[in-house]
Amino acid sequence: MAPDLAACEALDRADPLAVHREAFDLPEGAVYLDGNSLGALPRATAARVADCVRREWGQDLITSWNRADWIGLPRRVGDKIARLVGAGPGEVVVADSTSINVFKVLSAALALRPGRRTILSDTGNFPTDLYMAQGLSRLLGAGHHLRLVAPEEVAGAIDADTAVVMLTEVDYRSGRRHDMRALTAAAHRAGALAIWDLAHSAGALPVDLAGCEADFAVGCGYKFLNGGPGAPAFLHVARRHQDGFAQPLSGWLGHDAPFAFEAGYRPAAGIGRYACGTPPVLSMVALECGVDTVLAADMAALRAKSMRLGDLFVELVEERCAGHGIALACPRDAAARGSQVSFTHPDGYAIVQALVARGVIGDFRAPDVMRFGLAPLYLRHADIWRAVDALAGILASRAHDDPRFRRRAAVT
Amino acid sequence: MAPDLAACEALDRADPLAVHREAFDLPEGAVYLDGNSLGALPRATAARVADCVRREWGQDLITSWNRADWIGLPRRVGDKIARLVGAGPGEVVVADSTSINVFKVLSAALALRPGRRTILSDTGNFPTDLYMAQGLSRLLGAGHHLRLVAPEEVAGAIDADTAVVMLTEVDYRSGRRHDMRALTAAAHRAGALAIWDLAHSAGALPVDLAGCEADFAVGCGYKFLNGGPGAPAFLHVARRHQDGFAQPLSGWLGHDAPFAFEAGYRPAAGIGRYACGTPPVLSMVALECGVDTVLAADMAALRAKSMRLGDLFVELVEERCAGHGIALACPRDAAARGSQVSFTHPDGYAIVQALVARGVIGDFRAPDVMRFGLAPLYLRHADIWRAVDALAGILASRAHDDPRFRRRAAVT
Repeated sequence: MAPDLAACEALDRADPLAVHREAFDLPEGAVYLDGNSLGALPRATAARVADCVRREWGQDLITSWNRADWIGLPRRVGDKIARLVGAGPGEVVVADSTSINVFKVLSAALALRPGRRTILSDTGNFPTDLYMAQGLSRLLGAGHHLRLVAPEEVAGAIDADTAVVMLTEVDYRSGRRHDMRALTAAAHRAGALAIWDLAHSAGALPVDLAGCEADFAVGCGYKFLNGGPGAPAFLHVARRHQDGFAQPLSGWLGHDAPFAFEAGYRPAAGIGRYACGTPPVLSMVALECGVDTVLAADMAALRAKSMRLGDLFVELVEERCAGHGIALACPRDAAARGSQVSFTHPDGYAIVQALVARGVIGDFRAPDVMRFGLAPLYLRHADIWRAVDALAGILASRAHDDPRFRRRAAVT
Repeated sequence: MAPDLAACEALDRADPLAVHREAFDLPEGAVYLDGNSLGALPRATAARVADCVRREWGQDLITSWNRADWIGLPRRVGDKIARLVGAGPGEVVVADSTSINVFKVLSAALALRPGRRTILSDTGNFPTDLYMAQGLSRLLGAGHHLRLVAPEEVAGAIDADTAVVMLTEVDYRSGRRHDMRALTAAAHRAGALAIWDLAHSAGALPVDLAGCEADFAVGCGYKFLNGGPGAPAFLHVARRHQDGFAQPLSGWLGHDAPFAFEAGYRPAAGIGRYACGTPPVLSMVALECGVDTVLAADMAALRAKSMRLGDLFVELVEERCAGHGIALACPRDAAARGSQVSFTHPDGYAIVQALVARGVIGDFRAPDVMRFGLAPLYLRHADIWRAVDALAGILASRAHDDPRFRRRAAVT
């Protein structure tokens, strides 16, 4: 039998990671299961952003580019993220959005594999990665095409025409993890390169880019890195690939000497050439606070807790929600899952809205996926119990039939 | 004879725009002449950003995409900027950086003029625009090339191979204005399109994109729009060009139905397709506050004041700084000048540092340009007098010979 609320509370009292919840400002009474879409607010962020606004911008004005080292933010925060994803110093930079960064690293990968035309991805990849690949292929006009196969068919689909295997480690809907090490090795054996999107990995589970011999990676600042809404994204380029190609979004901050104002682009050495325009400083300092919350914890311990929370969620749902049309949509094996659980239900959208009305915040992904992110830095076992308790109550009473839960909002 | 301090103070007392200075938090005692690089902090911004952090993000979390209409920010702020640059609703969107936006609109312009290979620009354009054109040309591999001519030679250089004339209206060093209307017409007569970079125009002088029949424009949020360090940029696409091309940085927020999570990119109708990834919300709300400070004033009155401030600056320098190797580097005619004045001096870098040490903040642009931005929303005639008084004092005493003023910082 699954634990009851008291047992969950006992687990929380014994949890050595529980202290990290104090680093976040969370709304009273809510159960926040959407940290995989927008990470919670770190307590340090409001003061840091306010200081950036009032002192660094308001009082020190333009001098803060040097005095507050705004100019160093992309590399400094990049190096912090590198520690979370198993990359070395100088292999990660914060810049732009994940979408833009996909374009940069995909351009590089295709250039490094001339003659090969296939960009291989899977049907579970997040659409923006696919859209950027489509946009780049069309622009290049050189016959590149995006080939999509089912996630489990990727390894077998890599062939001599594959320039790059471009995958997201953790499926945004199902939470299914790819085997980053095995697929990177398979790509390399076929002479291809690999791009990993770590949107749902960075800050949620141990990533070992160096150990996997990964070529390129991108990732999101606003999910498990707690960087704030629309936080800048990051990208990784293995040192061996950095100087072999000048990525085409060649903005001035990727120039070797931006303040020489030369008429011709000369790429900076190393990862710096993957920067482009002027970074959004307010959003960057918030991202740094978020990254710091993850660096303060032990990633292996975070992962272990996230796996336990997921197992608990699944166990409770299967015990308390059976017979209401709900189906598990994520791997049952925690090791094969990212830091989320997912279920399908024909009324998934309305059920998620009914949960939100009860203070249990998950999200919905078309067509029928209810998705619950498990941010182990600030979630408690008791939160999982309360979430499933609310879900069971909704399903039993058909509370989701209320028409107000069926009206679709702009953002689902 | 140029006005003395008392006369300048009298001008300020009579200035109907003086009240707008109250909308800004400026450091006590400083004379800020770098609003063309980083606009000053609006008083409303700190509270707005704090509310976005604490309430919208911290308390309302993911629901703020709908509840606080974060998802609407790019279009809403874009429509506000449209009013400042003579564009219609739905013709401007806020997204990414100026560099990235140059890539988008240049891609569109080249696609709309197939067979033409020349991107025509001038040697005074800001380097990032040139770098992005170089990056795109190399990527396309279709023989496009960037041709640079002297600013005064642009009109004569437009020919039958010119796909697009890509210019910045106000030269970032000299402040020289291009004739946007005449050059756009010349481009059109030759069958070419025109892209205008409004980095030093938007919020500083009246722009009439519609009246000029401009095709595309980009611009900066952190200069005269007072949007904060690295604020997101904007771009404009004339309605007639919007649906004819799907720009290649085809991220999910430019999709017709982002939350349907389709595997294939279908561009949104209209300007929406020029959005790409998730926008940096904290920086976006700060930008909106900045744009509001400009919308609160009359642009024609702002321009008239900015011209008077520039004339005053030049008159005072010529009267008080003559004989010290300083030379006018901007047009003497205020109508031919943007909202700045520039001077050259062989010791320009050190002189600017010596000015900063005295609380007069301008900036330096290689190789020898001292640049003073004139933000008419918050600058006073007396500020100009004090700035030139400090400059005259430095030149007379050779204070800039102090070695500490010669050490180059990372950002100049």
